[in-house]
Amino acid sequence: MPATEPLGQVLTIEVGGALPYRVEVGSGLLAHLEVPHKQVALIYPSDLPNQFVEQVRAALSPAVMIVVPPRDACKTLSVLESVLSELAQANLTRDSAVVGLGGGAVTDLAGFAAASYLRGVAYYSVPTTLLGMVDAAVGGKTGVNLPEGKNLVGAFWPPKQVWVDVDTLATLPPATFREGAAEAYKHGLIADPSLLERVLSPEFVPGHASLPQIIADAIAVKAGVVTRDLTEQGERAYLNFGHTLAHALEAVTHQAITHGEAVGYGMHYAALLSREMGGKDLTDDTRAFLKYQKPQPLPPLTFEDLWPYMARDKKADAEGVRFVLLCDLAQPYLARVPEDILRRAFGIWVEEI
Amino acid sequence: MPATEPLGQVLTIEVGGALPYRVEVGSGLLAHLEVPHKQVALIYPSDLPNQFVEQVRAALSPAVMIVVPPRDACKTLSVLESVLSELAQANLTRDSAVVGLGGGAVTDLAGFAAASYLRGVAYYSVPTTLLGMVDAAVGGKTGVNLPEGKNLVGAFWPPKQVWVDVDTLATLPPATFREGAAEAYKHGLIADPSLLERVLSPEFVPGHASLPQIIADAIAVKAGVVTRDLTEQGERAYLNFGHTLAHALEAVTHQAITHGEAVGYGMHYAALLSREMGGKDLTDDTRAFLKYQKPQPLPPLTFEDLWPYMARDKKADAEGVRFVLLCDLAQPYLARVPEDILRRAFGIWVEEI
Repeated sequence: MPATEPLGQVLTIEVGGALPYRVEVGSGLLAHLEVPHKQVALIYPSDLPNQFVEQVRAALSPAVMIVVPPRDACKTLSVLESVLSELAQANLTRDSAVVGLGGGAVTDLAGFAAASYLRGVAYYSVPTTLLGMVDAAVGGKTGVNLPEGKNLVGAFWPPKQVWVDVDTLATLPPATFREGAAEAYKHGLIADPSLLERVLSPEFVPGHASLPQIIADAIAVKAGVVTRDLTEQGERAYLNFGHTLAHALEAVTHQAITHGEAVGYGMHYAALLSREMGGKDLTDDTRAFLKYQKPQPLPPLTFEDLWPYMARDKKADAEGVRFVLLCDLAQPYLARVPEDILRRAFGIWVEEI
Repeated sequence: MPATEPLGQVLTIEVGGALPYRVEVGSGLLAHLEVPHKQVALIYPSDLPNQFVEQVRAALSPAVMIVVPPRDACKTLSVLESVLSELAQANLTRDSAVVGLGGGAVTDLAGFAAASYLRGVAYYSVPTTLLGMVDAAVGGKTGVNLPEGKNLVGAFWPPKQVWVDVDTLATLPPATFREGAAEAYKHGLIADPSLLERVLSPEFVPGHASLPQIIADAIAVKAGVVTRDLTEQGERAYLNFGHTLAHALEAVTHQAITHGEAVGYGMHYAALLSREMGGKDLTDDTRAFLKYQKPQPLPPLTFEDLWPYMARDKKADAEGVRFVLLCDLAQPYLARVPEDILRRAFGIWVEEI
């Protein structure tokens, strides 16, 4: 059992709504996790550094430890089935808890397993990637992918608590950290412009003393939105800024492009659409982000390649697809966009990326 | 398109709670179904008589018709996955509806597909078996089985409306009708003793003028319970009278024993346990029901064969298994039963069945 690091300052964010919970952000949290359940199942990916697994194991003494494939390889109904079988074989009862420790894909899977096992047991989220921290861990969206598209299956199942231990970011490849920065930057665009400069600053790196506060502020944007709108009846859709194209890019490249990279590209398309629809020109911001993020290059793509995937977006209704656009910084709205504008903006986007 | 039968008298039961809905019971309902959604997916089993499928097709004009295997063969994550893929391929959006038409297994599967597709779309239930009508269709429990046990995966996802068309019962094999009678009889034991005599009377057969009222009264028992306790924090557990042994019998016989037959057997064990724990002797009632139901005989079984399955019951917690028992008619309670009493009652039960 590793020596327990002392807890530093812990920042807290309260998520409200019908089922409120707390997000704690700080350093050295993993070794101090505590849950009021006799039986705990710990779900984590095979590539998680062993030191983090051991810290959580020592803190929680799980009845069962379930290893899943890393990233989106774990977000399938087939992996879900094997996880659920392991929970059943461990005889986990309704008063037990599932703890998801890993990136956003793992916490999405673990949350859906908690939501559906025995029709719902307690869930705790311990994100270990920047993307998982500022996006997946808060808001209660859980689920898996289908061959037909991402996140087409799932449940709204808020965690009982979220622990964001920034120490886990130190072992991430820099590209993975920058991947997650896309969601923090997005929160800047749609709600808290102070984040734009801070995310692109030299302070936004693992180990920097300012990092916990920037992450906490990025989480606070999402916490505010989902407090007001858990099940995406209205405002919550704004969190999908950049995501309509992003999901299509992920699908068409078979996840060769990561989610955060796809969001980086997608935000620039959404900014172009916003400008073409008469909003303020914010494309310098989305260009600056792409310059910072350095995403993998995309293969040659046409509008026709991507449109079928965009048309299946969850924000679509029987009337067609809706995009999240910006009138200005922190002024998002939802709109149906005429096809000629979709195509014109796409042409510019293809040129610029 | 078949000629539309006129609607006879329609009995209605209101189910309350946070998401209230109405159950309509009557004759000729199928041809009059109506839902306020542009896109409808109809899910039904391969053995459903074509006349019912056609009536519903004509009434609802579904965008997609999804055929699933009959009975519990459809309650797997693998069938769920193919259903979800068909919903995605039909481009069903969040404002669409899933309609489940069939027995309790099919409506359980269809309800879970509705609960999890795009994290939840509207669900409508059209049960066509007695079991599906008096039990599965009301209360919002949806889900599938795991190899480790029945109903270990699912969601609480109440329907928007339930239509109980008693005409569908006319085509059921008599044994299947009597199978479903177990849940109606159980509602008599735990809450409405008037049902005991009526369920065993010659009036309780397909086509009899009294049938809709008896079914409606049996549904009303469940509707009352789930209105007060949707997620099984308390009273709702009483609906599981007889089910702890029943689920074990189904599992150990690999579903050779049907659910209703297992509940018939399980109610008698629960009545024996209740008596041994000091309650009124109601075993004449549960014996009378078995005599009426004529379930398939059971293979030779020991307590050790069944106990591992009973121990995994969803009413178990970290302290162990709890049984629903009766002090008297309509006076259920939840209790942990000492092992010597579990074994003694089991010995009597094995002798008597």
